Amino acid sequence: MKVLVLNSGSSSIKYQLFRSDDWVAIASGQIGRIGEAEGDLKMEWIDADGQSQCSKDNRPIPAHQEGIDHIVDKLQEQGVLADVTELSAIGHRVVHGGPHFKHPVVVDDEVEAEIRSVIPLAPLHNPGHLAGIEVARKHFPSVPSVVVFDTAFHQTMPPVSYRYAIPEYLYTEHRIRRYGFHGTSHQYVSKRAAAMLDKPLAECNLITLHLGNGASAAAIRNGQCVDTSMGLTPLEGLVMGTRSGDIDPAVLIYLWKNLDLNAAAVSHLLNRQSGLLGICGVNDMREISHQAEEGNKRAQLAIDMTLHRLKKYIGAYYAELGEVDAIVFTGGIGENSVEIRHGACEGLKRLGIEMDEAANAERIPGERVVSTPDSEVKLLVIPTNEELEIAQQALATVS
Amino acid sequence: MKVLVLNSGSSSIKYQLFRSDDWVAIASGQIGRIGEAEGDLKMEWIDADGQSQCSKDNRPIPAHQEGIDHIVDKLQEQGVLADVTELSAIGHRVVHGGPHFKHPVVVDDEVEAEIRSVIPLAPLHNPGHLAGIEVARKHFPSVPSVVVFDTAFHQTMPPVSYRYAIPEYLYTEHRIRRYGFHGTSHQYVSKRAAAMLDKPLAECNLITLHLGNGASAAAIRNGQCVDTSMGLTPLEGLVMGTRSGDIDPAVLIYLWKNLDLNAAAVSHLLNRQSGLLGICGVNDMREISHQAEEGNKRAQLAIDMTLHRLKKYIGAYYAELGEVDAIVFTGGIGENSVEIRHGACEGLKRLGIEMDEAANAERIPGERVVSTPDSEVKLLVIPTNEELEIAQQALATVS
Ligand SMILES: Nc1ncnc2c1ncn2[C@@H]1O[C@H](COP(=O)(O)OP(=O)(O)O)[C@@H](O)[C@H]1O
Ligand SMILES: Nc1ncnc2c1ncn2[C@@H]1O[C@H](COP(=O)(O)OP(=O)(O)O)[C@@H](O)[C@H]1O
Repeated sequence: MKVLVLNSGSSSIKYQLFRSDDWVAIASGQIGRIGEAEGDLKMEWIDADGQSQCSKDNRPIPAHQEGIDHIVDKLQEQGVLADVTELSAIGHRVVHGGPHFKHPVVVDDEVEAEIRSVIPLAPLHNPGHLAGIEVARKHFPSVPSVVVFDTAFHQTMPPVSYRYAIPEYLYTEHRIRRYGFHGTSHQYVSKRAAAMLDKPLAECNLITLHLGNGASAAAIRNGQCVDTSMGLTPLEGLVMGTRSGDIDPAVLIYLWKNLDLNAAAVSHLLNRQSGLLGICGVNDMREISHQAEEGNKRAQLAIDMTLHRLKKYIGAYYAELGEVDAIVFTGGIGENSVEIRHGACEGLKRLGIEMDEAANAERIPGERVVSTPDSEVKLLVIPTNEELEIAQQALATVS
Repeated sequence: MKVLVLNSGSSSIKYQLFRSDDWVAIASGQIGRIGEAEGDLKMEWIDADGQSQCSKDNRPIPAHQEGIDHIVDKLQEQGVLADVTELSAIGHRVVHGGPHFKHPVVVDDEVEAEIRSVIPLAPLHNPGHLAGIEVARKHFPSVPSVVVFDTAFHQTMPPVSYRYAIPEYLYTEHRIRRYGFHGTSHQYVSKRAAAMLDKPLAECNLITLHLGNGASAAAIRNGQCVDTSMGLTPLEGLVMGTRSGDIDPAVLIYLWKNLDLNAAAVSHLLNRQSGLLGICGVNDMREISHQAEEGNKRAQLAIDMTLHRLKKYIGAYYAELGEVDAIVFTGGIGENSVEIRHGACEGLKRLGIEMDEAANAERIPGERVVSTPDSEVKLLVIPTNEELEIAQQALATVS
């Protein structure tokens, strides 16, 4: 049997098809520019001989409906999906589950309505997800659609972590609280970390660092999330590609009053023009490292600020947890940047954190330990796999 | 000789008069409701026999000019100030020195203009300070007026700490950065901590926690401030009496868009209706402790959130500093709340932080050590004295 994972945005659909006996991804692809004059279509798959194949195409995809049609046609045409009865489940990534969803659920009308009701909390994401969910339910009436939420893993946080120090009615009436995101990734790497530590997850205290274009940290006690750096939205926390992360809230009031920006302009500024991009004009960490090596001071500041913020979160979560078994690095930067991993752990010997610089510097793929044998806190690099986690959770939910 | 310390607000003047040979405060007082129909006048002083005296009065004080006249008359009338030639200096507290002032300075027209130029950064404070400074310069033409800034001690922070991850022009053109406040208090307790540790301040790594109605933490490396929790304004950081401290900046955008609040309303909400008050309806920690003991859950949450945020800052600054000699508690809550000090240090054994619960529970005034003899990090309670620090800095500046 197989599981299809869909990540629908407002004008795109990303997908992966997994074989559920060995969890190999036998196809993955992306449809971009839905609704525009010319859509972008890409797919990679493993053919009958076990060879990787890929195809690219451009043609108009007016709406999500045609997008799903195309995906199914293409999967069947390339022989990776015989027919729809082969699908045990469809897993949908949904960014925001609001305060309601603590676990994945099979979609019905009520679930759809609940996801719709949190659109004000995730105006950029949930509408696109809903478009994909609706079409999938129509197209595959016999296959259960399961929604897997980026927020669900963080639902174990206690009120001290998820409440903000603002008037209570903003929480009770407007649902303003910390939700946290990247939950599927934090959950996936937590499980893998437990396996690497050879310890039950329920006995592991971890700090997981998902460092990609978006970046977040999570504090995990006995396998459960107790705190995370993203908040009501993915804007809070670490320095990210184009997002500011933590900032004096009064900066927004200052911009509003003195620069005469409106809510949309301030949101754009902090979400799209800030972070690494705002500090040094570039948001790609590889390029920034390169520029810093060549002596560019703004690029160096962007790296130093990233490290400074990371170190503060490591310390904060260390204090919250009291004892830490491992710190996990994942995401494009966490998996690949020797320098960021090194810098984030530098000077933390007193906390029992000692990096094995040679192991850290090895550029090899896959899961690995980069701390010294004596380091009390293990340092782990674990490539994340949110799609696999979604597929497995979707199957578990319908089984 | 004597030093007069003035803290002028928009409708109030607080003052203290110090004898500079032994630094005893021989008089202190407050004028409130300047410009209203009826002003509030209070003074305490030590008379010729060494006895404490006090007086209260109500009469109209139309402006700062009449306020200063009153203070001088009153000090002379009670015999604590023979005449103005006894004053070596007048020290003025100024909340915001902007990026320019790293040290106290004698006021001249240029300095006044510079303080005026940062009014947009401190619209609630600097105008009141300037009113006091102008009048003092006119009234005491022969006595140097020295301004001592709440921001100055934090000016040693490196760019990684004071820059926000927002577009660079907001820093270069609009001076948007972390400044930090309560600097005079953090500086005062740092010096006292070094004395208690019997170590040169320049060799001390400290975390200083000023916990009053406003609250801030500072990280001090080798006697110099390297980070602090308040930012562009005193809104950022810890949970305070009525201020939110850290929050997802997107919450402001949400309020703006969905609750239709304007900049002034959001500022009022986060500065005046949030913090402890927002969580549990009360902003006085003594009252909150009392309610929590009686089983009030919202009061307990307010305490728990205060502790959670404090612990995160202790951990963050610990990681930044790498090694910490002492953690210092000051301010109304830091000096008096057994429970907050206990909770902030609980579970931090792994960081070498061990409280002596009996010493912590003793309700005695004055400087004291509340850690166990074995605690690697010393825990100190140090009553702050910002007025004394201002007086001493003012005298040092003119000497
Ligand atoms: N070898 C590398 N060294 C440093 N950074 C890298 C490296 N490879 C990828 N990255 C960075 O990873 C980031 C993208 O991470 P990724 O997890 O793919 O992003 P997303 O959040 O969009 O999924 C980019 O900043 C990229 O420069
Ligand atoms: N014994 C006490 N126990 C707990 N809190 C106390 C105690 N005494 C004073 N406080 C608290 O200290 C806070 C005021 O601190 P203070 O430093 O005087 O404020 P400000 O920032 O206005 O100078 C109030 O919340 C008050 O309840």
